Amino acid sequence: MPLRLASSEANFEARFAAFLATKREVSEDVDAVVRDIIARVRAEGDAALIDYTKRFDQLDLSEAGIAVDAAEMDAAMERVDRDTLAALEFAHKRIAAHHARQMPKDDRYVDPIGVELGSHWTAVEAVGLYVPGGTASYPSSVLMNAVPARVAGVERIVMTVPSPRGELNPLVLAAARLAGVSEVYRVGGAQAVAALAYGTQTIAPVAKIVGPGNAYVAAAKRRVFGTVGIDMIAGPSEVLIIADSENDPAWLAADLLAQAEHDAAAQSILITDDAGLADAVEAEVERQLARLPRGAMAGASWRDYGAIILVSDLAEAVPLANRIAAEHLELAMEDAEAFVGKIRNAGAIFIGRHTPEVIGDYVGGSNHVLPTARSARFSSGLSVLDFVKRTSILKLGPDQLRALGPAAITLARAENLDGHAASVAIRLNPES
Amino acid sequence: MPLRLASSEANFEARFAAFLATKREVSEDVDAVVRDIIARVRAEGDAALIDYTKRFDQLDLSEAGIAVDAAEMDAAMERVDRDTLAALEFAHKRIAAHHARQMPKDDRYVDPIGVELGSHWTAVEAVGLYVPGGTASYPSSVLMNAVPARVAGVERIVMTVPSPRGELNPLVLAAARLAGVSEVYRVGGAQAVAALAYGTQTIAPVAKIVGPGNAYVAAAKRRVFGTVGIDMIAGPSEVLIIADSENDPAWLAADLLAQAEHDAAAQSILITDDAGLADAVEAEVERQLARLPRGAMAGASWRDYGAIILVSDLAEAVPLANRIAAEHLELAMEDAEAFVGKIRNAGAIFIGRHTPEVIGDYVGGSNHVLPTARSARFSSGLSVLDFVKRTSILKLGPDQLRALGPAAITLARAENLDGHAASVAIRLNPES
Repeated sequence: MPLRLASSEANFEARFAAFLATKREVSEDVDAVVRDIIARVRAEGDAALIDYTKRFDQLDLSEAGIAVDAAEMDAAMERVDRDTLAALEFAHKRIAAHHARQMPKDDRYVDPIGVELGSHWTAVEAVGLYVPGGTASYPSSVLMNAVPARVAGVERIVMTVPSPRGELNPLVLAAARLAGVSEVYRVGGAQAVAALAYGTQTIAPVAKIVGPGNAYVAAAKRRVFGTVGIDMIAGPSEVLIIADSENDPAWLAADLLAQAEHDAAAQSILITDDAGLADAVEAEVERQLARLPRGAMAGASWRDYGAIILVSDLAEAVPLANRIAAEHLELAMEDAEAFVGKIRNAGAIFIGRHTPEVIGDYVGGSNHVLPTARSARFSSGLSVLDFVKRTSILKLGPDQLRALGPAAITLARAENLDGHAASVAIRLNPES
Repeated sequence: MPLRLASSEANFEARFAAFLATKREVSEDVDAVVRDIIARVRAEGDAALIDYTKRFDQLDLSEAGIAVDAAEMDAAMERVDRDTLAALEFAHKRIAAHHARQMPKDDRYVDPIGVELGSHWTAVEAVGLYVPGGTASYPSSVLMNAVPARVAGVERIVMTVPSPRGELNPLVLAAARLAGVSEVYRVGGAQAVAALAYGTQTIAPVAKIVGPGNAYVAAAKRRVFGTVGIDMIAGPSEVLIIADSENDPAWLAADLLAQAEHDAAAQSILITDDAGLADAVEAEVERQLARLPRGAMAGASWRDYGAIILVSDLAEAVPLANRIAAEHLELAMEDAEAFVGKIRNAGAIFIGRHTPEVIGDYVGGSNHVLPTARSARFSSGLSVLDFVKRTSILKLGPDQLRALGPAAITLARAENLDGHAASVAIRLNPES
């Protein structure tokens, strides 16, 4: 049974706060193991990759090769059926078109004193894309991570993907080719992250690493942060649906379960002002669970982390939604547009009854890599901005230096940085 | 003696690569201590802050109070001399004006299929600003961190600053007041980071923590990353000056020393095509060092990490500069503008002989919080973007769902996510 809360209960605030504080992830203490793996890859390079891959993936890379070659990529394209390839291409086109709008513009201007200031954007030169293996190896994620990098102008996009017992998902390779991934290596885990960050004989290092992974991958990314850039540390997925009474309970149940089937730690939440709808959705979830192939997973998620929150008025849902700060927020209501402006914290908003979150997972065009676990309070979904960086520009002539210099000297002296003061003073008073 | 390299040497590439790989920071292993401090602050709140502050700052917060009150802030304003306050106000105005241009714009549009897509930017609600104590307690840093947050629209800016034996720099408090900091607490170290991330009885938690700090602060920020957002982990500062022959060696020496005086691990690098200038700058550095109050610090930095690189042609400096990826890059040359477009990796560029980097530290208007230790390859200086986040928006009607739905279903099935497929299919075929 999912959690049931009602805003009319006396102890609602305490129960809601406890619900918000629920940890959905077991934080495995893998840090010591990861530290050793990274140190060994730095010291031994390819040899360490070969050894770890034998151990963890039951694959001998000295035979299979660390790099996936062009012939393998071609073969993968052949193996993908025509409909799926067409759908991938459709998704690719929509994602590329949307992300092209995100490219930031340079800004260069002269202020009233004559000082020139500016911001100059450039692409990161090389990016590593971690792709999980096995059942979590999603071609859609390859598109979502690689396309913004390509749109940003990243020249070298390096993908690593573990291939347990040599198996690689041909769809993942096809997506990599579509998205313009430059190199693919069949390594995974913390050893892949270490190779991307520090380089080996075969894999040249990158400047930034993105993509989801298990606890080992997350710990490794946290450790190499600083040597390279990383994206957010992704947690289990979540959806919050705010629904008025005019909804088909079956549609809402399907959306809750689409989220829940991801992971036993995924979270699906419904907020509604209609107690009857809440009951109907709950019954419908049970009905649909019975016929869902991943029903065991989805059922565990719904039982352990699912929640239905009854409010007296949908306006009450606004502050609750902002505190939940959901990765995905569906607004299944009549005046959804009016709600959008009131939402402060959400990774993505899906407006209206005909915009199930799943559209955003694949073909909406927006990115499906979104902040989880309440991190929408301080971070954004993946975008072109994650693959560019800004250099600030300052240009003064002698007149501007005379105008700005004295204040700089005053502040430098107040901070006891006389060398700073001298660097300006020497230009203002050449005799000093 | 600083390192001397010449691109004409046979082993230049190897020596340059070794120079790039030089670690300037001792990575203290403080992680275990920090873990314990964070755990105790989470468990005990204010009591832990009081205890740690007694121990580390020789201050009894149960007497002094954790919060700095309005009367103390007023008193600090009184203690700052008029010239310094005017310079702070001048800097504040320029920083605010420049950062106002960085505010990203919402984007909402309809694509040819009729799908509505958008990006909606909102400010982070509450931000913590860590300010170091003692000699590294810089009012300019308070402005550089707080002003972009305020410009972004952050409502609550919470500053923590250790006050060893009760001492607080009045200039730091004055800068906080100017910049619109909402709350100030006299705590520092990992305990301050923990308090900002998790909250205590006195300090309500924030969503993001920014600001420089020592190894303990850096380790704590790394640990709380995910619960809250953090900015980059700042390392020791660095400057790269590319200079043609037409420079006053004394000016260049002053700029190299302004950087070196920050920290014994700071780094100052000169690239020039004029061997005579190189010699003159080196001699001039020695001369100026003798009369610099922080000469011991600056001398150690110059000796241990400083470098002069002689190139046969200034064009050779471009790839070297991009590999160094300096925090600060000064272009002290005739055709500096032509160089700017070729620079891929740099935190900030200072164009021409009359733009010493120090202007950017205080009154240029651009931010002085910039990526160090080659991280300009993948990250940017602090800006308004660090205090806002983007919610993506998607809106389909029945027609758009019919157009996009089938591809989504195909991809969901290819990923074995039948619940995803069902969430779209149920809307397309209500009888299913």
